[in-house]
Amino acid sequence: FQDALKGKKHDDKGLVFADLTSEEYTQVRDYMWSVSALNISRSVFAQPSENVLFLIELHLPPKSEVLRYLDKGGPRPRREAKAVVFSGSKQSISEYIVWPLPNPDHHQDVTLKTYNQELHINARTVTIGEYVALFKFVHKEVFGKVKTILEESFGYSESNTLNPFEGMPRGIQSGDRQTWFSFFRDRSGFYIHPVGFEVLINHRDTKSSMWKVEKALYNGEYFASLEELNEKYAAGKVKKIRYKESRDYGSLKPRHKPTGFGPLQYDVQGKRYSVRNNQVLYLDWSFAFGLSSLTGMRVFDIRFKGERIAYELSVQEAMSVYGSVTPGMMLTKFIDSSIGIGRFAHELVRGVDCPYTATFVDTYRYIDTNFTQRFRNSICIFEHNTGRPLRRHFSDFFSNSYGGLANNVLVFRTITAIGNYDYMWDFMFYQSGSVEAKVHATGYISSSYKTEDNLRYGHQVAENTLGNIHTHFINFKVDLDVLGRKNMFLTKDMEFVNVSLPWIPGEYAQIPRLVERQLKTEGEAALRYDTKTARYLHIASNLTNRWGHPRSYRLQVASFTGDHLPEAVPEERAMSWARYKVAITKYKDEEQTSSSLYNQNNIWSPAVDFSQFIEDNENIESEDLVAWVTTGFLHIPHAEDIPNTVSVGNGGGVILRPHNYFDEDPSMNSPDSVYIHPS
Amino acid sequence: FQDALKGKKHDDKGLVFADLTSEEYTQVRDYMWSVSALNISRSVFAQPSENVLFLIELHLPPKSEVLRYLDKGGPRPRREAKAVVFSGSKQSISEYIVWPLPNPDHHQDVTLKTYNQELHINARTVTIGEYVALFKFVHKEVFGKVKTILEESFGYSESNTLNPFEGMPRGIQSGDRQTWFSFFRDRSGFYIHPVGFEVLINHRDTKSSMWKVEKALYNGEYFASLEELNEKYAAGKVKKIRYKESRDYGSLKPRHKPTGFGPLQYDVQGKRYSVRNNQVLYLDWSFAFGLSSLTGMRVFDIRFKGERIAYELSVQEAMSVYGSVTPGMMLTKFIDSSIGIGRFAHELVRGVDCPYTATFVDTYRYIDTNFTQRFRNSICIFEHNTGRPLRRHFSDFFSNSYGGLANNVLVFRTITAIGNYDYMWDFMFYQSGSVEAKVHATGYISSSYKTEDNLRYGHQVAENTLGNIHTHFINFKVDLDVLGRKNMFLTKDMEFVNVSLPWIPGEYAQIPRLVERQLKTEGEAALRYDTKTARYLHIASNLTNRWGHPRSYRLQVASFTGDHLPEAVPEERAMSWARYKVAITKYKDEEQTSSSLYNQNNIWSPAVDFSQFIEDNENIESEDLVAWVTTGFLHIPHAEDIPNTVSVGNGGGVILRPHNYFDEDPSMNSPDSVYIHPS
Ligand SMILES: [Ca+2]
Ligand SMILES: [Ca+2]
Ligand SMILES: [Ca+2]
Ligand SMILES: [Ca+2]
Ligand SMILES: [Cu+2]
Ligand SMILES: [Cu+2]
Repeated sequence: FQDALKGKKHDDKGLVFADLTSEEYTQVRDYMWSVSALNISRSVFAQPSENVLFLIELHLPPKSEVLRYLDKGGPRPRREAKAVVFSGSKQSISEYIVWPLPNPDHHQDVTLKTYNQELHINARTVTIGEYVALFKFVHKEVFGKVKTILEESFGYSESNTLNPFEGMPRGIQSGDRQTWFSFFRDRSGFYIHPVGFEVLINHRDTKSSMWKVEKALYNGEYFASLEELNEKYAAGKVKKIRYKESRDYGSLKPRHKPTGFGPLQYDVQGKRYSVRNNQVLYLDWSFAFGLSSLTGMRVFDIRFKGERIAYELSVQEAMSVYGSVTPGMMLTKFIDSSIGIGRFAHELVRGVDCPYTATFVDTYRYIDTNFTQRFRNSICIFEHNTGRPLRRHFSDFFSNSYGGLANNVLVFRTITAIGNYDYMWDFMFYQSGSVEAKVHATGYISSSYKTEDNLRYGHQVAENTLGNIHTHFINFKVDLDVLGRKNMFLTKDMEFVNVSLPWIPGEYAQIPRLVERQLKTEGEAALRYDTKTARYLHIASNLTNRWGHPRSYRLQVASFTGDHLPEAVPEERAMSWARYKVAITKYKDEEQTSSSLYNQNNIWSPAVDFSQFIEDNENIESEDLVAWVTTGFLHIPHAEDIPNTVSVGNGGGVILRPHNYFDEDPSMNSPDSVYIHPS
Repeated sequence: FQDALKGKKHDDKGLVFADLTSEEYTQVRDYMWSVSALNISRSVFAQPSENVLFLIELHLPPKSEVLRYLDKGGPRPRREAKAVVFSGSKQSISEYIVWPLPNPDHHQDVTLKTYNQELHINARTVTIGEYVALFKFVHKEVFGKVKTILEESFGYSESNTLNPFEGMPRGIQSGDRQTWFSFFRDRSGFYIHPVGFEVLINHRDTKSSMWKVEKALYNGEYFASLEELNEKYAAGKVKKIRYKESRDYGSLKPRHKPTGFGPLQYDVQGKRYSVRNNQVLYLDWSFAFGLSSLTGMRVFDIRFKGERIAYELSVQEAMSVYGSVTPGMMLTKFIDSSIGIGRFAHELVRGVDCPYTATFVDTYRYIDTNFTQRFRNSICIFEHNTGRPLRRHFSDFFSNSYGGLANNVLVFRTITAIGNYDYMWDFMFYQSGSVEAKVHATGYISSSYKTEDNLRYGHQVAENTLGNIHTHFINFKVDLDVLGRKNMFLTKDMEFVNVSLPWIPGEYAQIPRLVERQLKTEGEAALRYDTKTARYLHIASNLTNRWGHPRSYRLQVASFTGDHLPEAVPEERAMSWARYKVAITKYKDEEQTSSSLYNQNNIWSPAVDFSQFIEDNENIESEDLVAWVTTGFLHIPHAEDIPNTVSVGNGGGVILRPHNYFDEDPSMNSPDSVYIHPS
């Protein structure tokens, strides 16, 4: 390490935010297994009718306890786990707090307290056990029933099978669990090899023997059953798809031998950051980090020069709404934290996903399995030279000098490779005291089999393949604590006012004026996407800087979102955070996340409806405030999305910028400052 | 060079776009000097009453001639210069075409043809000669008259003088040339050391003996003359400012010894781009470049895999509107190309402004002087690893593989250090076929002396210093030629439509649908900032890609602009391009730039009013189209703008993205592709 970190020391306090260790997961699992009343299956392939320990995660301690511990020498908050049990036997879902860690021996059902409702079993995520049963069902009850059709149409065989892709939500009302499966050729990037065959499987019952095929779609035509399809097909009453070999256009294999290397970055004199346990130090910055299996990457207790700026900055949700004429995509609204955003934080590849010199961190998770999983190199941390100055000025009037600073930033990154898509998450820490949260999308688009009438829902992007129009909405939680918890929400903007010119009687001019407002309630501070909002949004302290202005951090949102689902649609409440570019709420321990594990599969009666956080319209004049920031982009797929969507232009984010927080630009103290005076 | 450039060769055709050489400038100057009828002064300090050869620049040949030369083996277009003469003797401005180059012996006045109006002498930029006269005037007629006041108030002395900063426009109607000078302490970054003293100097007459002080402002109070100020000050009727030493808060000197180096990039195996003359080759890209003294950086004949994508991509204008109670800033609207955006493309500093390994190019200019100036290292070109993948996908369903590509881009950069501000201009060339134009602002803000009543126009940012609220508007010219000149303008967006679910009788759902439109006239295609516009904007060919869709490039604009000046304001027409986020016009050789050298100083009757390009509302259904793109940001200065504004979040730009232009993502052919298959 360089001198840049001299005098800065790691401490262990950030461990209150640390994910459970491999041992802790195992202890909680073993404890839960040992509670005979819970009767939890130990099989990784547990049937839906059994009781499944789906998830173990850190249960974050109450914020006030953590702050007493961090700031006031209070006791270390009790370390607890959250355990989620899908109970086939009781036809419900229960969440438990399990404590103490290590060596837990208590558990308590907190479901009702957390969600103010019982959770029906069909709100659950489809588990590996259910998938195994579903794939068996598909193999026997679908492929087995229409084998000839599949052979003739798609070249199907045991060794050249079809891959399924599910539409969600699974039905049209609470309790439904009937899923459209679309089928795709078994090639790399199968997501862009649709074959024009889809079936609706009702798997509502936790007994898989009760499941059935309810509908089928073949080449654009609906059939009440596979039997009907078989009969009509045999009778020549169906417009047949003739199997043709297709090009391997989904393959990511390079087409050429590498002809050389692009530029690489290296740390000239060693690293200027340090990672110990879940704590990162970088120049004037420090923070703790974690990775929730559900919501993904998060950092806590972000400090600059020792002063806390934010308590939490975290990914909350990634949601997409699709358009299509095919039933598999028609209703599709993906709500990713219900499957797990952090769950798919897979290995980052050196030299592509992160620089060769980055620091890689392994993470451990317990989700939808019966053992602790280690995810190697699933977080990377590196200092990056952005290739553009953070600031610079050359003076040629009255004096000649140059001052500047390269823009070196610390990047904290994970990737969510969730099925077809790969979201790249970055938190970036600038020497000017700014923090940026960014997301980019890459990977495969979803597609459907191209017919004449579906061009209204996208573009053809490959042989028989329609890239379906869809939205990407991403939600971040930004719990700034500007000089403590008591903050206010300010907006600033400009307006032209007609002003008389003092030195020319009778003359007027339109002059831009600063317009400042304080928004005092959650209702006022819920800034909808479809309304004009002030250009500057601030979380501010009532303490002032040297020049008498409230010290604040500004939220600058960059977004290219499409339209949000109309609010009248029954599914909308499960994604109501997407109504708002920024919404400010009064902090509550009970309002930890803007979405939930259950929003996808009981989308009509969501366990968390974000709009309810605002519904009570609380006063936010001097409160602990949380900003919920939505960004994203409208995606109209085009040929260049094949094989993969590129990250350029396909993202969004928010920059947290000091605004009268300091008395001057803190980057003036950067060790990287350069000054040239020709003399 | 690496194999990456194998088979790619430079040619000399791009020289049609090359700036004049040092010798060419000198030849044009000598020729113009030799034309006795023009009677041009040879002094670098020529008086306004004399005739001044202000500017020599390349005169771009007509596009059709260039294309015949580039594409059809036509003759090389005649090389011509444009020469601008400020004629004090005739009280007018004339523009001449001078040819042939080299060895010119012809000139022709093209003023009327170019602007459809005579140009009054007071539309001219203030020359060095005029500045010298103005500073003499200030020294004698201002400082000389109120010396005691300046000594007592500001510690003024011959060795501790005050620096002037001008407000613009210089008056309130055509022909006016009266400028408010605000005064600042003579310290580094004097722009943020205002002293509360301003004078209005009328320098309308080209004879400096006729100039006079028309008004003065001292500590917020107006005086009809300096004599009045002196009298009232002596009589104790003026609220005095008492001189106090101030901190050197504008200095860019580092406060600490460097403690180490941040990360650096290096080209592992040499460069993958090549620069010869004004031509750049980079992997599949090629383009020619130039730097106009007025409009700045520009590239031409941008090709990807040999196919022209754009004829021109160029900076056009940088404009700011300020708010203030002080007269120096109150009316201020800076229109930078009237002073020269390329003119201030100063040296780029290795390791800060561009990487150490970048290729630096010198440029030559002839503006507001009597000799050719060389600007060392004023362009830099480098390949940059953005530190984020361009694309990547990891598959864990049904198969296990990884494909990805580091996002290496070619960056073409200049900086405009224009007085207080530094604009950083980047054109970036991506392996996915995208080109991005970006601008960031840094340097010093403008400020005014802080009094009680000016907090409505900004924030206090330092002792007695108000950072004035202002807008930044930037205009780019984007002359895409998608498979030739005949293009159309398409928009794409989404809308929710109510659709019945084919498999559930009586059930309906809101489904997003693709909405495509062709905008057929300039009027329709002028997309105002204050209206909702389609999210996808395309310049398209009627030729289709393999999948039957019009091949197009999409314009994706990132912008954080404030409000544009109301159109009723007389000064607005000089910046009417800023009304539009994007405006599409039918290409005309006569509509080369959206602004002009004369828009600042005759702002009320501008030589170029962009809105006139659209006024004739021409058909754009199958024409050569030009997109004029506006971006920028609202700047509410805050303490962290001291000493310099940082680039993070303070910028904007436009990405030109292929959209059904190709049949698949062209980055699949990149030499940087990585593929991992565990087997
Ligand atoms: Ca509330
Ligand atoms: Ca807070
Ligand atoms: Ca026109
Ligand atoms: Ca064109
Ligand atoms: Cu997408
Ligand atoms: Cu600014």
